[in-house]
Amino acid sequence: VAGYKTIEWVDGKVRMIDQRQLPHTLVYVEYEDYHQVAQAIRDMVIRGAPAIGAAAGYGMALAALHSRAASPQELRVELIQAAHDLGASRPTAHDLFWATARILKRTNDKTLSDLVSIKAAALEEAQQIAHANIEINRRIGLNALPLIPDKARILHHCNTGSLATVDYGTALGVARAAFEHGKQVHVYVDETRPRLQGARLTAWELEQLGIPYTVIVDSASGSIMRRIGIDLCLVGCDRIAANGDTANKIGTYNLALIAHAHHVPFYVVGPTSTIDMSICNGDEINIEERPAEEVTHIAGVQITPEGAPVANPAFDVTPAQYITAIITERGITRPPYIENLAAMMSDKGIIQA
Amino acid sequence: VAGYKTIEWVDGKVRMIDQRQLPHTLVYVEYEDYHQVAQAIRDMVIRGAPAIGAAAGYGMALAALHSRAASPQELRVELIQAAHDLGASRPTAHDLFWATARILKRTNDKTLSDLVSIKAAALEEAQQIAHANIEINRRIGLNALPLIPDKARILHHCNTGSLATVDYGTALGVARAAFEHGKQVHVYVDETRPRLQGARLTAWELEQLGIPYTVIVDSASGSIMRRIGIDLCLVGCDRIAANGDTANKIGTYNLALIAHAHHVPFYVVGPTSTIDMSICNGDEINIEERPAEEVTHIAGVQITPEGAPVANPAFDVTPAQYITAIITERGITRPPYIENLAAMMSDKGIIQA
Repeated sequence: VAGYKTIEWVDGKVRMIDQRQLPHTLVYVEYEDYHQVAQAIRDMVIRGAPAIGAAAGYGMALAALHSRAASPQELRVELIQAAHDLGASRPTAHDLFWATARILKRTNDKTLSDLVSIKAAALEEAQQIAHANIEINRRIGLNALPLIPDKARILHHCNTGSLATVDYGTALGVARAAFEHGKQVHVYVDETRPRLQGARLTAWELEQLGIPYTVIVDSASGSIMRRIGIDLCLVGCDRIAANGDTANKIGTYNLALIAHAHHVPFYVVGPTSTIDMSICNGDEINIEERPAEEVTHIAGVQITPEGAPVANPAFDVTPAQYITAIITERGITRPPYIENLAAMMSDKGIIQA
Repeated sequence: VAGYKTIEWVDGKVRMIDQRQLPHTLVYVEYEDYHQVAQAIRDMVIRGAPAIGAAAGYGMALAALHSRAASPQELRVELIQAAHDLGASRPTAHDLFWATARILKRTNDKTLSDLVSIKAAALEEAQQIAHANIEINRRIGLNALPLIPDKARILHHCNTGSLATVDYGTALGVARAAFEHGKQVHVYVDETRPRLQGARLTAWELEQLGIPYTVIVDSASGSIMRRIGIDLCLVGCDRIAANGDTANKIGTYNLALIAHAHHVPFYVVGPTSTIDMSICNGDEINIEERPAEEVTHIAGVQITPEGAPVANPAFDVTPAQYITAIITERGITRPPYIENLAAMMSDKGIIQA
């Protein structure tokens, strides 16, 4: 859809944008070893739950295609190892585990009796995950349209656009869909420390799309709501528990509380692959702690005194009570989430790991 | 008190730390022209409401001492111009206007009949403002002691230490007083984008003082309150309206809302010179909008796409309803602020502009 490809399969390799170089340079990197893919996820060459899911899927495909296993059984053991290694790269986003589990399930199909067909199935499943994501995101955008008033002033956290997905985007895709359907929107982009995905990536995407935006520091959200006014908040999600509690980029919880205090609707947007019905609530979500350097250094420049102690949780959990609705490709889900997420997820036709 | 001097008068010049160089280098700069002082305030060589007040006072002294006025009347006109120029440097902090007004009042004393005595009075008043600030801050720290439990986990915004004052600090001085009185404290230092006064200055001061601390990004405050627990928040103030509404560094309002949602006491700390009884509420406070570069660039490195639109309000207003107490050198004031601030400020002996 966009003029750039966040992630794609090209000539037996997975190619992705090195998002650490944006917005200054658009650089593509290619990997043919799944360990490199795991490292790329860890280093945030690629980030965003759905994009990580697609990367993990292609990582599994690479593990299969480059395997020297002598038997289907041996190959399947290697794929379990690959799923483990990829899963260890970043613990919070559910899409990653959902994608590797999907490929394990597909390649475990006992009708696949030889190495060639297992390898082909792994790649096919990875391609399906990636390609379906674009359509899923478009559907999310359409589903959300009734929630976006004309002249909407939207506050958006982190990056949830094409770069966070295979294409089109989730929360930012909602703003994009509204814009493409002729609504005027203005997106307030919070910079999203420490990695600045808002200032670097979301601003860059909105610039490409021609959607009006304004960058603010994360802590200005309350000031903007009070003085200028915000009509709704849009955020993505890395893992949604069965009760609706949502893990997402650090700062999401703060924004939810600020929105709540101002009676501003707070929408969580993502594919159903982010919903983890195996956990009851957000307390069970493993929150990744990332390196101190993300806080102490910006663009290679040290900010803090030498050796300053840092806490750097990469995600936080927003309790369901602060979430106005969860928007997925299957529609808009509202409280009570325990009942309504279960109903949505039990609809037939859903591919769940 | 500390091994460094934020601002002092030395040999007919005002000397101050160039805070833009911290925490990496401790550099002093000297000015003998009040226009330079106004520029230093604008460029945030010096910042923090009480420190700006002291700088403005010394700026007035420089204007007086270097004046070539031929008559007391001419000198007084020049001082009004100097007060105007200094006041135009940063509009929000009340201490600045309070300090210049104090010097105008003092130099307008009709018993000062010659140029020499007017000039001497200007310098003497500026010295009094600066020197009294240290004692005021120590008293604030003592007044606050009963509010600080042992093993207090304190969340602190921006910088309010020695560097924001003449010495000792206001909100950070409260943590320091508790520490010096044998209480264990741990300060969670939010970095305070865009200028990073928390990560750069507060971390540096706490390091010097040996007070345990942890740096976090601004948007992690809710996560820390939920997962680790915070016993109280301490913030400074740039201007307090008669009803208790408080202007302070951008992000203060967000933190107040986050604290409110977690039932964490939220204390505003500052000298009574920050209280502006001439305005009814926070809506009347002039909020400075600072250059976009503070958001688009960090340490000289560009973050956002070229030309990205930015909103950069330097301050926000926290409504009085979210403030548990206001701590000044005169004691602890609690709601209803309209009555209680008026009672405190009408006590005799207060020097008010």
